[in-house]
Amino acid sequence: MEVLAALNLGDIAQVFSKMGMFPVFDVAYYIVSILYLKYEPGSVEVSRRSPVASWLCAMLYCFGSYILADILLGSSPIDYFQHNSHILLASAVWYLVFYCPLNLFYKCVAFLPVKLVLVALKEVVRTRKIAAGVHHAHHAYHHGLFIMVIVGYVKGSGVALISNFEQLLRGVWRPDTNEILNMSFPTKASLYGAILFTLQESHWLPVAKSTLILIFTLFMATSKVVMTARHSHGSPFALIESWVCHLLFGSPLGGSEEDH
Amino acid sequence: MEVLAALNLGDIAQVFSKMGMFPVFDVAYYIVSILYLKYEPGSVEVSRRSPVASWLCAMLYCFGSYILADILLGSSPIDYFQHNSHILLASAVWYLVFYCPLNLFYKCVAFLPVKLVLVALKEVVRTRKIAAGVHHAHHAYHHGLFIMVIVGYVKGSGVALISNFEQLLRGVWRPDTNEILNMSFPTKASLYGAILFTLQESHWLPVAKSTLILIFTLFMATSKVVMTARHSHGSPFALIESWVCHLLFGSPLGGSEEDH
Amino acid sequence: MEVLAALNLGDIAQVFSKMGMFPVFDVAYYIVSILYLKYEPGSVEVSRRSPVASWLCAMLYCFGSYILADILLGSSPIDYFQHNSHILLASAVWYLVFYCPLNLFYKCVAFLPVKLVLVALKEVVRTRKIAAGVHHAHHAYHHGLFIMVIVGYVKGSGVALISNFEQLLRGVWRPDTNEILNMSFPTKASLYGAILFTLQESHWLPVAKSTLILIFTLFMATSKVVMTARHSHGSPFALIESWVCHLLFGSPLGGSEEDH
Repeated sequence: MEVLAALNLGDIAQVFSKMGMFPVFDVAYYIVSILYLKYEPGSVEVSRRSPVASWLCAMLYCFGSYILADILLGSSPIDYFQHNSHILLASAVWYLVFYCPLNLFYKCVAFLPVKLVLVALKEVVRTRKIAAGVHHAHHAYHHGLFIMVIVGYVKGSGVALISNFEQLLRGVWRPDTNEILNMSFPTKASLYGAILFTLQESHWLPVAKSTLILIFTLFMATSKVVMTARHSHGSPFALIESWVCHLLFGSPLGGSEEDH
Repeated sequence: MEVLAALNLGDIAQVFSKMGMFPVFDVAYYIVSILYLKYEPGSVEVSRRSPVASWLCAMLYCFGSYILADILLGSSPIDYFQHNSHILLASAVWYLVFYCPLNLFYKCVAFLPVKLVLVALKEVVRTRKIAAGVHHAHHAYHHGLFIMVIVGYVKGSGVALISNFEQLLRGVWRPDTNEILNMSFPTKASLYGAILFTLQESHWLPVAKSTLILIFTLFMATSKVVMTARHSHGSPFALIESWVCHLLFGSPLGGSEEDH
Repeated sequence: MEVLAALNLGDIAQVFSKMGMFPVFDVAYYIVSILYLKYEPGSVEVSRRSPVASWLCAMLYCFGSYILADILLGSSPIDYFQHNSHILLASAVWYLVFYCPLNLFYKCVAFLPVKLVLVALKEVVRTRKIAAGVHHAHHAYHHGLFIMVIVGYVKGSGVALISNFEQLLRGVWRPDTNEILNMSFPTKASLYGAILFTLQESHWLPVAKSTLILIFTLFMATSKVVMTARHSHGSPFALIESWVCHLLFGSPLGGSEEDH
C-alpha cells in the first residue's frame, strides 16, 4: 500500500476507472465466458446439433448480467442487443471457440499463461459492471439500498444466477442445486462487492469510488488468477464466513470449506 | 347483518378501508407467510446451508404478490424493495422465525390462539392487496377487465402462483403439480375476490368499495380462521364449484372435495 | 410469377397487406392453435380437472407471441389482454374445442379439408405478426438489427418458444428438449422470415414490404398446407440447412432430415 501511495494512488485510480473497456477488456470477458461454456458437459454436442441454441447460450454467458439487470429495473431484457458491434464481437468469439479449424483458437486461449491474463482482464470488467449496476440502480431509486445491492450483485454474477435456465436451453436440468444454494467464489465476491459499492454510493463508506474500483479489481484479479492457476474452487472468505454463519445462522462450522 | 346496519355499516366500512396496514397488519402478514415457509420440508436445512437462499425465499413469500403484479404491469419486479423499512421488518421476522435461540419466536407465533389472530390479520392485508391490485390495473387499463382480474388475482395469491420456482430456489422440483392445477382455498378465493372487485371497479356491482372490502375481509378471515383451527384444507366453495364445473366443463361430480 | 405480374403484383400485394385480420383470420388462428393444444397428451384431462389451467394454456397458445414480444420490449406481458373482444373470442373458441357437446366443434374443425383452410389462414396471420414485430422493434431501436430479428422471431413462433413452461402449467416437464434445440418448421421459417423482414426494414433488401408479405405468406401457407395434408414434419429447408450447417458448424450431413 505504501508503494501505491508513493505513486499517488488517487491519480492512478482516476485514470484506471476512466479507462475504456471496449474492445480489449470486453473481448477478454467474452473469451473467458465462452470458454467456461465450452467446459460445460454436452455443450460441444449442442453446438453441432443446434447452432442457434449454442449461440443463445453464448450470448447469455456474455450478456447475462445486462439481461438480468435490465429485467430487474423493468427495461427491455434485450436492450443491450442494440449494440451491434458488441454482439458481433461476442458472436465472432463464440464461432472461433466452437468451430475454429483444428480447435486452434480454443487451444490458444485455454493455454494457461494466456488464460491467466484473460481471467485477470475479465475481473476488471466484472468490477466495473458491479459499480455501474449500483450506480444505475441508485439513479433509479435514490434510497433503495436493497435494490442497489441486488442490481450490483446480478451485474457481477451474470449468467451464474440463471444457470438452471441456461442449462435448460441446452436440454440439461439439475434442479437440486443452483448458484444461490451453492455460491461460487465470483458470485460471493459480487455480493460483497455490491454491498461495498452500495455503501460507497450512499456515502456510508468514506472512500472515492475510483479507489474502491481499483482496490476491488486488484483483489478480484489476484484471487481469480491464483485460483485458476491452482485449479482451486475454495474461497478466501471461507474461514470468516464459516464463523459468521456459525454465530448468526447456526450453520455447522467448517461446512463450506472445500478445495478440490 | 341487522346489527351491522344498526351500527351504520357504511361508516364502519369507510373507517376500516382507510385503516393503515403498516406495521401491525404487515408484520402479521410476514409472520404467517414465513411460518408457512418454515413448514415446507427442507426449508430449515436450507436456512442453515445457505442463508441467502432462505432470505430470498422469505422475501418471495412476503412480497411475491408485489413482484408478480409489477412484472405483469411492466414495472421493475423489485420496485417494492425501495421500501427499506418493509424489507428490514420482513428480514427481522425471517431471522426470528428461523434463527431465534431455543426456537422461541417460532413456538410463540405457532401457538394456535396466537396463530389464529395472525391468520385473521393476514387476510385483512390480502383483501386490501386484491382491491389495490384491481384499482392499480384499472388505472393503467381503463377497460381491461381481464387485466384487472389477473392483477387482482396475483396480488391476492402471491408466492403460491410461482411456488414451482420458489421451490427451485431451495433445490426442490415438483413439476407434476402447481397452484393453478390444484388451487388451494386462498388462491381460489383471491380469484373470486378479484372478479368481484373488478365488477365493482367497472360499476357492474352496485356496492361501495369500502363495503365490499369489509364483507370480503370478514368472509376470508372467518374462513381461514375456521380452516386453520380445524386443520382443514377443504373449501366452502366445494359444493357449488363441483356442480358448476360439472355443468360447464363436464368435470366428474365431487372430484374436488377433499378434507384431511 | 408471370400471371401475378400480369395481374399487377404490386397492387395485389398492397391490398393484401392492408386487409384486416379481425375477426376471420384471427378466429382461424385461435382454432388451429387450440386444436394443437388439444392434440397434446393429457390436455383433455387437464381441461376436466382444472379449467383455469386449461384456459391459461389456451391463452398462451393464442397470444404467446404478443406476451413474449411485450416481455422482450419491456412492456407489460399482459398488455394484449386489454383487447377484451379478442380474449372473449379466443375463450369462446377454447370452450367450443374442449367442451362442445358430442365434441361436435372439434370434429368439424379437425376435418381435413376444413383444417387445411384454417391452417392456410393461420399462416397469413403469422406472416403479418412477423412483419409487425420487426416494424415495432425497428420503431424502438432504429439500428438494433439483432433486436428486430429476435422480436420478429418470437412474434412468429409464439408459444413454441416457451413450450417447456406451457407444459409445466399442465403438470408436464420435458427438460431434455425444447423448441430451440429441435426447431420445427414454423419456428425455423419464422427465424428466416424475421431475418428477411429485418433486411427489408433496414433497406438492405430492395423489395416493397407488401410484396415481401405476399410472397412469404404464399410460401408459408403452401408449405404448411402440403405438410398438414401429408402429415409430414419434414422441412423444405432440410437439404440446404444440412449443407450449410455441415460447412459452417461441422454438423454431420443429413442429420436433420426426418420425415414421419
